[in-house]
Amino acid sequence: MKKLINAPEDVLIESLRGVQAAHPELRVDFDNRVIYRGTPKADGKVALISGGGSGHEPLHGGFVGLGMLDAACAGEVFTSPTPDQMQAATLEVNRGAGVLHIVKNYTGDVMNFEMAAELAAADGVEVATVVTDDDVAVQDSTWTAGRRGVGVTVLLEKIVGAAAEEGRDLAAVKAVAEKVEAGGRSMGMALTSCTVPAAGKPTFDLPDDQMEIGIGIHGEPGRHRVPLAPASEIAEQLVEPILADLDFTGAPAIVMLNGMGGSPLIELYLMYGEVARILEAKGVQVARSLVGNYITSLDMAGCSVTLLRADDELLGLWDAPVSTPGLRWGL
Amino acid sequence: MKKLINAPEDVLIESLRGVQAAHPELRVDFDNRVIYRGTPKADGKVALISGGGSGHEPLHGGFVGLGMLDAACAGEVFTSPTPDQMQAATLEVNRGAGVLHIVKNYTGDVMNFEMAAELAAADGVEVATVVTDDDVAVQDSTWTAGRRGVGVTVLLEKIVGAAAEEGRDLAAVKAVAEKVEAGGRSMGMALTSCTVPAAGKPTFDLPDDQMEIGIGIHGEPGRHRVPLAPASEIAEQLVEPILADLDFTGAPAIVMLNGMGGSPLIELYLMYGEVARILEAKGVQVARSLVGNYITSLDMAGCSVTLLRADDELLGLWDAPVSTPGLRWGL
Repeated sequence: MKKLINAPEDVLIESLRGVQAAHPELRVDFDNRVIYRGTPKADGKVALISGGGSGHEPLHGGFVGLGMLDAACAGEVFTSPTPDQMQAATLEVNRGAGVLHIVKNYTGDVMNFEMAAELAAADGVEVATVVTDDDVAVQDSTWTAGRRGVGVTVLLEKIVGAAAEEGRDLAAVKAVAEKVEAGGRSMGMALTSCTVPAAGKPTFDLPDDQMEIGIGIHGEPGRHRVPLAPASEIAEQLVEPILADLDFTGAPAIVMLNGMGGSPLIELYLMYGEVARILEAKGVQVARSLVGNYITSLDMAGCSVTLLRADDELLGLWDAPVSTPGLRWGL
Repeated sequence: MKKLINAPEDVLIESLRGVQAAHPELRVDFDNRVIYRGTPKADGKVALISGGGSGHEPLHGGFVGLGMLDAACAGEVFTSPTPDQMQAATLEVNRGAGVLHIVKNYTGDVMNFEMAAELAAADGVEVATVVTDDDVAVQDSTWTAGRRGVGVTVLLEKIVGAAAEEGRDLAAVKAVAEKVEAGGRSMGMALTSCTVPAAGKPTFDLPDDQMEIGIGIHGEPGRHRVPLAPASEIAEQLVEPILADLDFTGAPAIVMLNGMGGSPLIELYLMYGEVARILEAKGVQVARSLVGNYITSLDMAGCSVTLLRADDELLGLWDAPVSTPGLRWGL
């Protein structure tokens, strides 16, 4: 295993130290492993929390800041954070208007966020929850009943963050979250496995001449292993299952070409060119796009495509100012 | 070779297609392989051009936009662009106040930019040049007489871009560039080799238990191969040669922890935490920081550290608004 780390068991806490050193505008609670905005939002606004296992950076900690999250709870690598982390964050960020929990559909995350919501409710904080499950690759998987939550989580945190910043109430913020969740679909692929630091070896074996289509962000199995193919064919194998699952014509689309962590930007742009070409041929109108590493799987080489069926409301919220380590514009 | 590409010979042009599709605010000249701002800057302002071999993305094309470059000339992977590309770009961006060429110190780039400057001068365009050579690792290397130009190029394009945007004249803009070049130092390391698409195999062999300290951004040899070490020791091996080369105390520093392309963000933040700890112990005052993939070497795993000895002028220019695919704030 070749990694820029010290002891595997210290990866999370030492990475959080680097986040705090690099971003004085954030505040890291090292005991609870929660990343907060340095300046809390105004009283009366809905707060947003997300979190999950680490190893997907910049998700979620890199999306804390004006226009996105109020706090992110960090679990160990590929391991759900605990209910007490989530409860502490929920109480801390509540500005009297309630808190939205943004949860990716993995059994541990869903269970722990449910428990945290109950604990917070007992403390008098109103909590609403949205669960993302946008991965069209497989129904049920290693750690998931139903579909996995992947790339749409990034778009949702941006769009819903803007709605909360506008001062909409909890029911309205939740309604926007549900609209994004309903209109988003993703599909990913891997050229190589990731290596979890504590495991010390690749999560799975993938021969030099094969790739895995429909991979999960923890290296969970996808739909099938197929021979390595040119980027143009990989793009088709990612886009077609998405378009087969939901009609993306007749509305503006937000498209993300996301890197898994180990693929360089020159390849991600090349892949985006292929995806854009297919979408144009299929009559999908791309209104906004995002290319880069946003929801990663440690050092895995590969990529995923996320499409969101948008409308004027969602595009307006997408364009609203945001200032986080991972996404920044308009400020 | 596992890459998200089609034919190796089409990587550059197809990646540029993706850049154009993802960034309607830029204009790609596919014949000359130059990336321009979609909206040229105002008449009477100095224009900035850079360029070099591809494979270092987001450098340089990802730094075209308000507050940074006016154009970037893209060569094939790890191959200098040609004088005619640079000449075309120089004539195109000139707004009557002259053009600054920002050149990394590699023999081909230096020679070709010199020729382009002569051609542009013959066409009546005033050209000034700054050559970056901030890599403290080695004196002379595979493609370089003297030191190699690496990370400080990123900081220079940002800071000097702001000076040009302010409307300073060519001599003043060049003076800022020389100040940045004089005050910047870098050192990099690799855990793995990169793989050039046209070669189809790793540029060098690096055993599983070794790393290369002082690596170049094209996989050129560094100072030495040493056994794999913890991040804390790697950070020392990168920071100490920099501090030995220039005094960074008594002035605010801008620090970049740059990923080589294949190392995930969780590791880069962990490394930054180690670098910040060492700098604090050494009495270096970190005023600004940047953590992520900014000047990469295709899919190489590894990182580099860049320090810039700054002052109030340089910090002010650093903080000025910028809007490019790779760096964006204040807008």
